[in-house]
Amino acid sequence: MKYAFSKRVRHLQSSAVRDILKVVNQGNVISFAGGLPDEELFPIAGLQAAFEKTFASGKKALQYAETEGYLPLRDVLIERMKRKGITSYSANDVLVTTGSQQAIDLFSKVVFNPGDVILAENPTYLAALQVFESYEAHVIGVESDEHGMIPEDLEEKVKRYRPKCIYVVPTFSNPTGKVWSMERRQQLLALAQKYHVIVFEDDPYGDIQFNKDEEYAPIASLDKKGTHVLYTSTFSKTAVPALRTGWITGPYQIIRLMSQAKQANDLHSNSLAQQALYHLCMDYDLDGHIQMLIREYDARMKLMLGELEKANLPGMSYVVPKGGMFFWIELDESVDTTDMLATAVERGVAYVPGSPFYVGKGKENTLRLNFTHSTPEKIEKGMKLLTEVLQENRQEIITP
Amino acid sequence: MKYAFSKRVRHLQSSAVRDILKVVNQGNVISFAGGLPDEELFPIAGLQAAFEKTFASGKKALQYAETEGYLPLRDVLIERMKRKGITSYSANDVLVTTGSQQAIDLFSKVVFNPGDVILAENPTYLAALQVFESYEAHVIGVESDEHGMIPEDLEEKVKRYRPKCIYVVPTFSNPTGKVWSMERRQQLLALAQKYHVIVFEDDPYGDIQFNKDEEYAPIASLDKKGTHVLYTSTFSKTAVPALRTGWITGPYQIIRLMSQAKQANDLHSNSLAQQALYHLCMDYDLDGHIQMLIREYDARMKLMLGELEKANLPGMSYVVPKGGMFFWIELDESVDTTDMLATAVERGVAYVPGSPFYVGKGKENTLRLNFTHSTPEKIEKGMKLLTEVLQENRQEIITP
Repeated sequence: MKYAFSKRVRHLQSSAVRDILKVVNQGNVISFAGGLPDEELFPIAGLQAAFEKTFASGKKALQYAETEGYLPLRDVLIERMKRKGITSYSANDVLVTTGSQQAIDLFSKVVFNPGDVILAENPTYLAALQVFESYEAHVIGVESDEHGMIPEDLEEKVKRYRPKCIYVVPTFSNPTGKVWSMERRQQLLALAQKYHVIVFEDDPYGDIQFNKDEEYAPIASLDKKGTHVLYTSTFSKTAVPALRTGWITGPYQIIRLMSQAKQANDLHSNSLAQQALYHLCMDYDLDGHIQMLIREYDARMKLMLGELEKANLPGMSYVVPKGGMFFWIELDESVDTTDMLATAVERGVAYVPGSPFYVGKGKENTLRLNFTHSTPEKIEKGMKLLTEVLQENRQEIITP
Repeated sequence: MKYAFSKRVRHLQSSAVRDILKVVNQGNVISFAGGLPDEELFPIAGLQAAFEKTFASGKKALQYAETEGYLPLRDVLIERMKRKGITSYSANDVLVTTGSQQAIDLFSKVVFNPGDVILAENPTYLAALQVFESYEAHVIGVESDEHGMIPEDLEEKVKRYRPKCIYVVPTFSNPTGKVWSMERRQQLLALAQKYHVIVFEDDPYGDIQFNKDEEYAPIASLDKKGTHVLYTSTFSKTAVPALRTGWITGPYQIIRLMSQAKQANDLHSNSLAQQALYHLCMDYDLDGHIQMLIREYDARMKLMLGELEKANLPGMSYVVPKGGMFFWIELDESVDTTDMLATAVERGVAYVPGSPFYVGKGKENTLRLNFTHSTPEKIEKGMKLLTEVLQENRQEIITP
């Protein structure tokens, strides 16, 4: 039988992220590809205790629950966001989602008609682009430098395209690892307010900040009336990914519709996990755990940085990450990282080619390296393998 | 700020199911409204042991996982479906979802363009109608009797509307509690094959069968080539709802696209729960547990039946459920169950008015009663309260 599908499926494809997970699962390859935290650092004892407490709380913990999410957890999230200066919202304005990925999906579902425009950094989070495209929204890239979107280009494109939304990952972005300056955050919000556009602030990495003294206020914290910014984050990087628990907060009008859309999507997210995460926040020193993660990931980043400095390849450039999980590397223009991947994996090291992260045609001479999932030993070994592959690749280009 | 939403949101609304959950949570009302299993019967010790085993299996259990679902669980599901005669599929053809609700959503996402037609029983599962409408599909009701859809009406409508799909809940349906005859199952499949239409078989209640001697083969088990039927079910009624774990199987071409759509939606469903459910299936006597549920729910159904027989209201009719969780009651045509609900809740008993379950305008003199969530004591007390309200309502109508 021949099946008839929706027009939407044209935009569906097995993504790089999926292929990454397959590489990672293939034994001997040292992978800098996936955006994975290190499972060896998971707070497994704390989490197990939190599950035990949830089971001990009675059978009702296992019944159907509210679409919006477990209320005590939403209260905790409000308190945690307040510490970041996000003060415009109450638990009613929070929707618990199946990872922050679902927050992007539900937002898109209630906001985009086919042909609607969304502005995004370029490059940006690949799986967000895939969601926007699955709703037939039209994504336009905005020029950026190491401080964030260029305000002039942003304003010009807001005026030209009248977008419904500006999507940003301003703090330790995926894939670039960059962090926006305070000035650019304020400029973005001012433009959003001037032209009545919603800012969708995706902040999965904000807690993994290496330098305590610097301050990166979420854009949502600057929006004192709580009218122009939706803010989403997740427990996947700070606790564990398997529980698939993220959340989104913002203007109630939008959150309420997203909640109704979620009801049709899946009724509610796993509520046992939500209750366990509530107990984890209450009984376990999650902040101390995050400090440990920061120390460990900072050390791994510096180790990778040292290897990059040693390699010192002509034409290579990168910004030293101030947090998060990624290095974003630009190579000599002659390099094609997609072509090079098979050789690298053969040699025992994996990365993600940078081009799929771009809106439209991407730079083929870019790649993303994750420094959180591999042990220090594997980072050293893997970076040596990668440097060899890069050097050989250069020589082949120079002497064909 | 005024927000601009997608056209889809016209079809979103707080559903009766949601309002039901709110009534249920309001203390003293005896509720026959929600479609809830009884939490007192949950296999909590078995499940807690299954979680402990998952935690003991190592930290990797808490890492990101594959979109398709935990492979050993998919293997177990294939085995369990084989016992029902569903033999055309392997683990590759199974997608684990956030409840079977998400299976309906993902199917709709990859299949329906705005204006596409889907045929459904009438009345049928409310939250499925909401999903179809959220993708702007056009639902057409097919006439049914107590044996299933009327084949003549079905064929006439297939020819007239050229639907992409026929949605059915053939075994102990929600809301009607009815079960299709074998003949009607075969006729439906034959029509689907003749006209190249997909059958979406929603089977959350099939395991809760009161009479062991009767056989209700899933329509998917009759589709020996595995080309025309998608089959979805869930652990929500047989184990616990909080884990939000369902699954769907069917032709790989469709499952693969649904899996890609799911990757954009939420990456994957909670995988700790999937691993725990795998251990529950392996180490715990889930079939024995289901037998216990059947005995208990059958006794409660009979108790409710006894109260209905005692009430013996003129104009009342119903079919005695052979499984599942619901009585579907039709009352004298003068009764409006939506109007009557406020009075009933005031008196301390809740039900769901039947009209929202219909495609298009529904019968206002219908209601759905759940017999699984209330204890026998509550069923007796609640049915007395409900009978009083119904009797008074009749008298008011007769002597205005």
